[in-house]
Amino acid sequence: MSRYPLEERWGRRRMQDSNFGVLRLGYRKGRDPRITTHLALVSRALGASHFMLAGDTDDDLFSNVASVNERFGGDMMCEYLDRPMPWLRRFSQNDAGDGAPGVVVHLTMYGEPYKHVITRIRRDRPVGVVVGGAKVPSDVFQYAHYNVAVGNQPHSEVAALALFMEAWFGESGTERHFPNARLEIQPSARGKTVVDHERDGESE
Amino acid sequence: MSRYPLEERWGRRRMQDSNFGVLRLGYRKGRDPRITTHLALVSRALGASHFMLAGDTDDDLFSNVASVNERFGGDMMCEYLDRPMPWLRRFSQNDAGDGAPGVVVHLTMYGEPYKHVITRIRRDRPVGVVVGGAKVPSDVFQYAHYNVAVGNQPHSEVAALALFMEAWFGESGTERHFPNARLEIQPSARGKTVVDHERDGESE
Repeated sequence: MSRYPLEERWGRRRMQDSNFGVLRLGYRKGRDPRITTHLALVSRALGASHFMLAGDTDDDLFSNVASVNERFGGDMMCEYLDRPMPWLRRFSQNDAGDGAPGVVVHLTMYGEPYKHVITRIRRDRPVGVVVGGAKVPSDVFQYAHYNVAVGNQPHSEVAALALFMEAWFGESGTERHFPNARLEIQPSARGKTVVDHERDGESE
Repeated sequence: MSRYPLEERWGRRRMQDSNFGVLRLGYRKGRDPRITTHLALVSRALGASHFMLAGDTDDDLFSNVASVNERFGGDMMCEYLDRPMPWLRRFSQNDAGDGAPGVVVHLTMYGEPYKHVITRIRRDRPVGVVVGGAKVPSDVFQYAHYNVAVGNQPHSEVAALALFMEAWFGESGTERHFPNARLEIQPSARGKTVVDHERDGESE
Protein backbone atom coordinates (compact mmCIF):
# COMPACT_ATOMS: atom_id res chain seq x y z
CA MET A 1 0.00 0.00 0.00
CA SER A 2 2.74 2.46 0.97
CA ARG A 3 5.98 3.00 -0.87
CA TYR A 4 7.57 4.49 2.23
CA PRO A 5 7.44 3.39 5.82
CA LEU A 6 5.01 5.63 7.62
CA GLU A 7 7.67 6.96 9.96
CA GLU A 8 9.68 8.17 7.00
CA ARG A 9 6.70 9.85 5.40
CA TRP A 10 5.71 11.39 8.67
CA GLY A 11 9.24 12.63 9.11
CA ARG A 12 9.41 14.02 5.59
CA ARG A 13 6.33 16.11 6.16
CA ARG A 14 7.38 17.37 9.56
CA MET A 15 7.19 21.15 10.04
CA GLN A 16 5.15 21.49 6.88
CA ASP A 17 1.69 20.77 8.17
CA SER A 18 -0.27 19.87 11.24
CA ASN A 19 1.45 16.51 11.85
CA PHE A 20 -1.76 15.20 13.25
CA GLY A 21 -2.57 11.56 12.51
CA VAL A 22 -5.66 9.49 13.20
CA LEU A 23 -5.36 5.71 13.60
CA ARG A 24 -8.48 3.57 13.24
CA LEU A 25 -7.88 0.21 14.91
CA GLY A 26 -9.73 -3.04 14.24
CA TYR A 27 -11.49 -2.06 11.03
CA ARG A 28 -13.97 -4.63 9.76
CA LYS A 29 -14.80 -3.99 6.14
CA GLY A 30 -18.05 -5.96 6.21
CA ARG A 31 -19.42 -4.00 9.12
CA ASP A 32 -17.81 -0.60 9.46
CA PRO A 33 -17.22 0.87 5.99
CA ARG A 34 -19.41 3.95 6.31
CA ILE A 35 -18.40 4.69 9.88
CA THR A 36 -14.74 4.43 8.94
CA THR A 37 -15.24 6.54 5.82
CA HIS A 38 -16.81 9.16 8.06
CA LEU A 39 -13.81 8.94 10.40
CA ALA A 40 -11.47 9.54 7.46
CA LEU A 41 -13.50 12.46 6.10
CA VAL A 42 -13.77 14.07 9.53
CA SER A 43 -10.00 13.66 9.89
CA ARG A 44 -9.45 15.42 6.58
CA ALA A 45 -12.06 18.16 7.05
CA LEU A 46 -10.87 19.12 10.52
CA GLY A 47 -7.19 19.16 9.77
CA ALA A 48 -5.42 15.80 10.08
CA SER A 49 -2.33 15.23 7.94
CA HIS A 50 -2.60 11.41 8.06
CA PHE A 51 -5.31 8.79 8.36
CA MET A 52 -4.15 5.29 9.22
CA LEU A 53 -6.20 2.13 8.98
CA ALA A 54 -5.55 -1.16 10.78
CA GLY A 55 -7.56 -4.36 10.61
CA ASP A 56 -9.04 -5.08 7.18
CA THR A 57 -7.64 -3.36 4.11
CA ASP A 58 -9.97 -1.25 1.96
CA ASP A 59 -8.75 0.32 -1.27
CA ASP A 60 -12.22 1.73 -1.99
CA LEU A 61 -12.11 3.74 1.21
CA PHE A 62 -8.71 5.20 0.34
CA SER A 63 -9.86 5.97 -3.22
CA ASN A 64 -12.88 7.73 -1.81
CA VAL A 65 -10.68 10.01 0.31
CA ALA A 66 -8.34 10.63 -2.64
CA SER A 67 -11.36 11.64 -4.72
CA VAL A 68 -12.49 14.11 -2.04
CA ASN A 69 -8.94 15.55 -1.90
CA GLU A 70 -8.93 15.91 -5.66
CA ARG A 71 -12.22 17.79 -5.71
CA PHE A 72 -12.21 19.71 -2.43
CA GLY A 73 -8.51 20.15 -1.87
CA GLY A 74 -6.12 19.13 0.84
CA ASP A 75 -3.54 16.39 0.89
CA MET A 76 -4.33 14.17 3.86
CA MET A 77 -2.54 10.88 3.31
CA CYS A 78 -4.12 7.49 3.94
CA GLU A 79 -1.97 4.59 5.09
CA TYR A 80 -2.63 0.98 5.95
CA LEU A 81 -0.79 -0.30 9.03
CA ASP A 82 -0.21 -4.03 8.95
CA ARG A 83 1.09 -4.16 12.52
CA PRO A 84 -0.45 -1.24 14.38
CA MET A 85 0.63 -2.13 17.90
CA PRO A 86 4.41 -2.14 17.27
CA TRP A 87 3.94 1.07 15.30
CA LEU A 88 1.99 2.63 18.17
CA ARG A 89 4.56 1.59 20.76
CA ARG A 90 7.40 2.99 18.72
CA PHE A 91 5.58 6.24 17.95
CA SER A 92 4.60 6.64 21.59
CA GLN A 93 7.84 5.66 23.29
CA ASN A 94 10.70 6.09 20.85
CA ASP A 95 10.31 7.66 17.50
CA ALA A 96 7.57 9.63 15.78
CA GLY A 97 9.68 9.87 12.64
CA ASP A 98 12.40 12.23 13.79
CA GLY A 99 13.97 10.15 16.55
CA ALA A 100 11.85 11.48 19.41
CA PRO A 101 8.51 10.20 20.76
CA GLY A 102 5.19 11.57 19.59
CA VAL A 103 2.06 12.13 21.65
CA VAL A 104 -0.61 9.43 21.62
CA VAL A 105 -4.19 10.30 22.50
CA HIS A 106 -6.65 7.41 22.78
CA LEU A 107 -10.32 8.30 22.46
CA THR A 108 -12.38 6.09 24.79
CA MET A 109 -15.60 6.55 26.71
CA TYR A 110 -13.68 5.41 29.80
CA GLY A 111 -11.12 8.20 29.70
CA GLU A 112 -10.74 11.62 31.28
CA PRO A 113 -12.81 14.60 30.09
CA TYR A 114 -11.30 15.91 26.87
CA LYS A 115 -11.74 19.59 27.62
CA HIS A 116 -9.72 19.23 30.80
CA VAL A 117 -7.04 17.00 29.30
CA ILE A 118 -6.55 18.93 26.07
CA THR A 119 -5.01 21.92 27.82
CA ARG A 120 -2.22 19.68 29.16
CA ILE A 121 -1.20 18.04 25.88
CA ARG A 122 2.03 19.36 24.37
CA ARG A 123 1.68 20.81 20.89
CA ASP A 124 5.29 20.73 19.71
CA ARG A 125 5.30 17.02 18.81
CA PRO A 126 3.45 14.90 16.24
CA VAL A 127 0.09 13.73 17.57
CA GLY A 128 -1.46 10.32 16.96
CA VAL A 129 -5.13 9.97 17.88
CA VAL A 130 -6.26 6.37 18.29
CA VAL A 131 -9.87 5.49 17.58
CA GLY A 132 -10.77 2.00 18.71
CA GLY A 133 -12.75 -0.63 16.87
CA ALA A 134 -14.70 -3.58 18.18
CA LYS A 135 -12.09 -4.74 20.66
CA VAL A 136 -9.31 -2.42 21.77
CA PRO A 137 -6.14 -4.23 22.93
CA SER A 138 -5.39 -3.30 26.53
CA ASP A 139 -1.92 -2.21 25.40
CA VAL A 140 -3.53 0.82 23.79
CA PHE A 141 -4.43 2.15 27.24
CA GLN A 142 -0.76 1.78 28.21
CA TYR A 143 0.85 3.19 25.07
CA ALA A 144 -1.48 6.19 25.10
CA HIS A 145 -0.17 9.23 26.92
CA TYR A 146 -3.76 10.31 27.36
CA ASN A 147 -6.94 8.23 27.50
CA VAL A 148 -9.54 10.80 26.69
CA ALA A 149 -13.34 10.65 26.87
CA VAL A 150 -15.66 12.88 24.89
CA GLY A 151 -18.44 12.35 27.39
CA ASN A 152 -18.64 9.16 29.44
CA GLN A 153 -21.69 7.98 27.51
CA PRO A 154 -21.90 5.49 24.67
CA HIS A 155 -22.32 7.43 21.43
CA SER A 156 -20.03 7.46 18.40
CA GLU A 157 -16.35 7.41 17.57
CA VAL A 158 -17.11 9.77 14.68
CA ALA A 159 -18.61 12.30 17.08
CA ALA A 160 -15.79 11.84 19.59
CA LEU A 161 -13.14 12.42 16.93
CA ALA A 162 -14.91 15.51 15.61
CA LEU A 163 -15.35 17.07 19.04
CA PHE A 164 -11.76 16.33 20.03
CA MET A 165 -10.35 17.75 16.80
CA GLU A 166 -12.52 20.86 16.97
CA ALA A 167 -11.33 21.46 20.52
CA TRP A 168 -7.72 20.84 19.43
CA PHE A 169 -7.71 23.02 16.32
CA GLY A 170 -10.24 25.64 17.41
CA GLU A 171 -11.47 27.95 14.67
CA SER A 172 -9.06 26.37 12.21
CA GLY A 173 -11.07 23.12 12.52
CA THR A 174 -14.44 23.57 10.87
CA GLU A 175 -13.51 26.96 9.38
CA ARG A 176 -10.62 25.39 7.52
CA HIS A 177 -10.00 26.28 3.87
CA PHE A 178 -8.09 24.12 1.43
CA PRO A 179 -6.21 26.39 -0.99
CA ASN A 180 -5.85 23.78 -3.73
CA ALA A 181 -9.57 23.01 -3.94
CA ARG A 182 -11.25 22.64 -7.31
CA LEU A 183 -14.74 22.78 -5.83
CA GLU A 184 -15.58 25.26 -3.13
CA ILE A 185 -18.87 25.43 -1.31
CA GLN A 186 -19.85 28.94 -0.36
CA PRO A 187 -22.01 29.40 2.73
CA SER A 188 -25.62 30.13 1.89
CA ALA A 189 -28.76 30.75 3.92
CA ARG A 190 -30.92 29.02 1.28
CA GLY A 191 -29.89 26.52 -1.35
CA LYS A 192 -26.53 25.38 -2.63
CA THR A 193 -23.69 27.49 -4.00
CA VAL A 194 -20.71 25.62 -5.39
CA VAL A 195 -17.82 27.36 -7.14
CA ASP A 196 -15.92 25.26 -9.67
CA HIS A 197 -12.52 26.92 -9.97
CA GLU A 198 -11.68 25.00 -13.13
CA ARG A 199 -14.71 26.42 -14.88
CA ASP A 200 -14.28 29.67 -12.96
CA GLY A 201 -17.99 30.04 -12.38
CA GLU A 202 -20.71 29.26 -9.95
CA SER A 203 -23.34 26.57 -10.10
CA GLU A 204 -26.47 26.58 -8.03
CA MET B 1 -45.06 2.80 16.42
CA SER B 2 -46.44 5.72 18.43
CA ARG B 3 -49.57 5.71 20.51
CA TYR B 4 -49.76 9.47 20.41
CA PRO B 5 -49.23 11.91 17.58
CA LEU B 6 -45.79 13.40 17.98
CA GLU B 7 -47.11 16.90 18.41
CA GLU B 8 -49.14 15.76 21.38
CA ARG B 9 -46.19 13.99 22.97
CA TRP B 10 -43.94 16.93 22.32
CA GLY B 11 -46.54 19.20 23.87
CA ARG B 12 -46.96 16.97 26.91
CA ARG B 13 -43.26 17.13 27.63
CA ARG B 14 -42.94 20.84 27.07
CA MET B 15 -41.22 22.74 29.89
CA GLN B 16 -39.97 19.51 31.41
CA ASP B 17 -36.85 18.95 29.40
CA SER B 18 -34.72 20.33 26.65
CA ASN B 19 -37.39 20.10 23.92
CA PHE B 20 -34.69 19.45 21.42
CA GLY B 21 -35.54 16.99 18.67
CA VAL B 22 -33.42 15.47 15.92
CA LEU B 23 -35.07 14.31 12.70
CA ARG B 24 -33.20 11.89 10.44
CA LEU B 25 -34.66 12.09 6.93
CA GLY B 26 -34.43 9.43 4.22
CA TYR B 27 -33.18 6.54 6.34
CA ARG B 28 -32.22 3.44 4.37
CA LYS B 29 -32.06 0.43 6.62
CA GLY B 30 -29.90 -1.59 4.26
CA ARG B 31 -27.25 1.09 4.00
CA ASP B 32 -27.32 3.43 6.95
CA PRO B 33 -28.05 1.45 10.13
CA ARG B 34 -24.82 2.17 12.00
CA ILE B 35 -24.63 5.79 10.93
CA THR B 36 -28.22 6.31 12.04
CA THR B 37 -27.65 4.47 15.31
CA HIS B 38 -24.72 6.80 15.91
CA LEU B 39 -26.96 9.80 15.16
CA ALA B 40 -29.49 8.55 17.72
CA LEU B 41 -26.84 7.88 20.38
CA VAL B 42 -25.21 11.27 19.82
CA SER B 43 -28.66 12.86 20.13
CA ARG B 44 -29.21 11.09 23.44
CA ALA B 45 -25.73 11.64 24.86
CA LEU B 46 -25.63 15.35 24.07
CA GLY B 47 -29.10 16.20 25.32
CA ALA B 48 -31.90 15.69 22.80
CA SER B 49 -35.36 14.89 24.13
CA HIS B 50 -36.57 13.28 20.90
CA PHE B 51 -35.10 11.36 18.01
CA MET B 52 -37.29 11.02 14.93
CA LEU B 53 -36.74 8.69 12.02
CA ALA B 54 -38.20 9.01 8.51
CA GLY B 55 -37.67 6.73 5.55
CA ASP B 56 -37.39 3.06 6.44
CA THR B 57 -38.66 1.82 9.79
CA ASP B 58 -36.24 0.06 12.14
CA ASP B 59 -37.45 -1.45 15.39
CA ASP B 60 -33.96 -2.77 16.17
CA LEU B 61 -32.55 0.73 16.14
CA PHE B 62 -35.23 1.95 18.55
CA SER B 63 -34.70 -1.07 20.82
CA ASN B 64 -31.01 -0.35 20.84
CA VAL B 65 -31.61 3.20 22.07
CA ALA B 66 -34.13 1.96 24.66
CA SER B 67 -31.50 -0.47 25.91
CA VAL B 68 -28.94 2.32 26.27
CA ASN B 69 -31.51 4.42 28.15
CA GLU B 70 -32.22 1.49 30.46
CA ARG B 71 -28.56 0.98 31.28
CA PHE B 72 -27.10 4.48 31.12
CA GLY B 73 -30.13 6.57 32.02
CA GLY B 74 -32.05 9.29 30.27
CA ASP B 75 -35.41 9.15 28.57
CA MET B 76 -34.91 10.34 25.00
CA MET B 77 -37.90 9.19 22.99
CA CYS B 78 -37.66 7.66 19.53
CA GLU B 79 -40.44 8.18 17.02
CA TYR B 80 -41.06 7.09 13.48
CA LEU B 81 -42.52 9.78 11.20
CA ASP B 82 -44.50 8.38 8.33
CA ARG B 83 -44.90 11.74 6.59
CA PRO B 84 -41.98 13.91 7.68
CA MET B 85 -42.50 16.83 5.32
CA PRO B 86 -46.03 17.77 6.46
CA TRP B 87 -44.81 17.34 10.04
CA LEU B 88 -41.83 19.59 9.37
CA ARG B 89 -43.94 22.26 7.72
CA ARG B 90 -46.41 22.30 10.56
CA PHE B 91 -43.70 22.34 13.22
CA SER B 92 -41.83 25.11 11.42
CA GLN B 93 -44.73 27.35 10.43
CA ASN B 94 -47.68 26.66 12.71
CA ASP B 95 -47.47 24.42 15.68
CA ALA B 96 -44.64 22.80 17.60
CA GLY B 97 -47.17 21.14 19.91
CA ASP B 98 -48.42 24.15 21.84
CA GLY B 99 -50.01 26.14 19.04
CA ALA B 100 -46.94 28.20 18.13
CA PRO B 101 -44.14 27.47 15.65
CA GLY B 102 -40.90 25.80 16.64
CA VAL B 103 -37.42 26.51 15.33
CA VAL B 104 -36.09 24.31 12.53
CA VAL B 105 -32.34 23.99 11.99
CA HIS B 106 -31.20 22.06 8.94
CA LEU B 107 -27.65 20.74 9.00
CA THR B 108 -26.16 20.92 5.51
CA MET B 109 -22.66 21.43 4.15
CA TYR B 110 -24.13 24.22 1.99
CA GLY B 111 -25.36 26.32 4.92
CA GLU B 112 -24.03 29.22 6.96
CA PRO B 113 -21.28 28.71 9.56
CA TYR B 114 -22.84 27.22 12.68
CA LYS B 115 -20.85 29.22 15.19
CA HIS B 116 -22.09 32.46 13.67
CA VAL B 117 -25.69 31.31 13.25
CA ILE B 118 -26.08 29.69 16.64
CA THR B 119 -25.93 32.98 18.50
CA ARG B 120 -29.00 34.20 16.57
CA ILE B 121 -31.27 31.22 17.20
CA ARG B 122 -33.98 31.79 19.79
CA ARG B 123 -33.90 29.43 22.75
CA ASP B 124 -37.41 29.84 24.10
CA ARG B 125 -39.06 27.54 21.56
CA PRO B 126 -38.80 23.82 20.76
CA VAL B 127 -35.96 23.08 18.35
CA GLY B 128 -36.02 20.55 15.56
CA VAL B 129 -32.68 19.71 13.97
CA VAL B 130 -32.97 18.09 10.55
CA VAL B 131 -30.25 15.72 9.40
CA GLY B 132 -30.54 14.81 5.76
CA GLY B 133 -30.18 11.44 4.12
CA ALA B 134 -29.28 10.51 0.56
CA LYS B 135 -31.52 13.07 -1.11
CA VAL B 136 -32.87 16.00 0.83
CA PRO B 137 -36.14 17.43 -0.56
CA SER B 138 -35.65 21.06 -1.52
CA ASP B 139 -38.59 21.94 0.73
CA VAL B 140 -36.33 21.30 3.70
CA PHE B 141 -34.24 24.33 2.76
CA GLN B 142 -37.46 26.39 2.75
CA TYR B 143 -39.03 25.04 5.94
CA ALA B 144 -35.80 25.43 7.85
CA HIS B 145 -35.36 28.73 9.67
CA TYR B 146 -31.63 28.15 9.51
CA ASN B 147 -29.58 26.16 7.04
CA VAL B 148 -26.43 25.57 9.00
CA ALA B 149 -23.06 24.18 7.93
CA VAL B 150 -20.56 22.61 10.27
CA GLY B 151 -17.73 23.35 7.91
CA ASN B 152 -18.33 23.60 4.16
CA GLN B 153 -16.50 20.34 3.54
CA PRO B 154 -17.90 16.88 2.97
CA HIS B 155 -17.50 14.86 6.17
CA SER B 156 -20.19 13.29 8.33
CA GLU B 157 -23.69 14.03 9.54
CA VAL B 158 -22.73 12.37 12.84
CA ALA B 159 -19.87 14.83 13.29
CA ALA B 160 -22.03 17.77 12.21
CA LEU B 161 -24.76 16.87 14.69
CA ALA B 162 -22.27 16.42 17.52
CA LEU B 163 -20.51 19.73 16.89
CA PHE B 164 -23.79 21.61 16.55
CA MET B 165 -25.22 20.11 19.74
CA GLU B 166 -22.03 20.72 21.70
CA ALA B 167 -22.09 24.35 20.59
CA TRP B 168 -25.79 24.60 21.47
CA PHE B 169 -25.66 22.99 24.89
CA GLY B 170 -22.14 24.01 25.89
CA GLU B 171 -20.76 22.27 28.97
CA SER B 172 -24.07 20.51 29.51
CA GLY B 173 -23.45 18.61 26.25
CA THR B 174 -20.64 16.14 26.73
CA GLU B 175 -20.50 16.73 30.49
CA ARG B 176 -24.11 15.66 30.83
CA HIS B 177 -25.13 13.29 33.63
CA PHE B 178 -28.21 11.10 33.58
CA PRO B 179 -29.56 10.82 37.13
CA ASN B 180 -31.50 7.60 36.54
CA ALA B 181 -28.51 5.68 35.19
CA ARG B 182 -27.90 2.11 36.30
CA LEU B 183 -24.40 2.03 34.85
CA GLU B 184 -22.08 4.97 35.27
CA ILE B 185 -18.66 5.26 33.71
CA GLN B 186 -16.20 7.13 35.86
CA PRO B 187 -13.41 9.02 34.11
CA SER B 188 -10.09 7.24 34.36
CA ALA B 189 -6.58 7.96 33.11
CA ARG B 190 -5.91 4.22 32.62
CA GLY B 191 -8.39 1.41 32.15
CA LYS B 192 -12.13 1.17 32.67
CA THR B 193 -14.16 2.05 35.74
CA VAL B 194 -17.87 1.27 35.62
CA VAL B 195 -20.16 1.69 38.61
CA ASP B 196 -23.24 -0.52 38.64
CA HIS B 197 -25.70 1.25 40.91
CA GLU B 198 -27.90 -1.83 41.20
CA ARG B 199 -25.01 -3.84 42.57
CA ASP B 200 -23.69 -0.74 44.32
CA GLY B 201 -20.12 -1.58 43.51
CA GLU B 202 -17.43 -0.97 40.95
CA SER B 203 -16.17 -3.26 38.24
CA GLU B 204 -12.93 -2.80 36.39
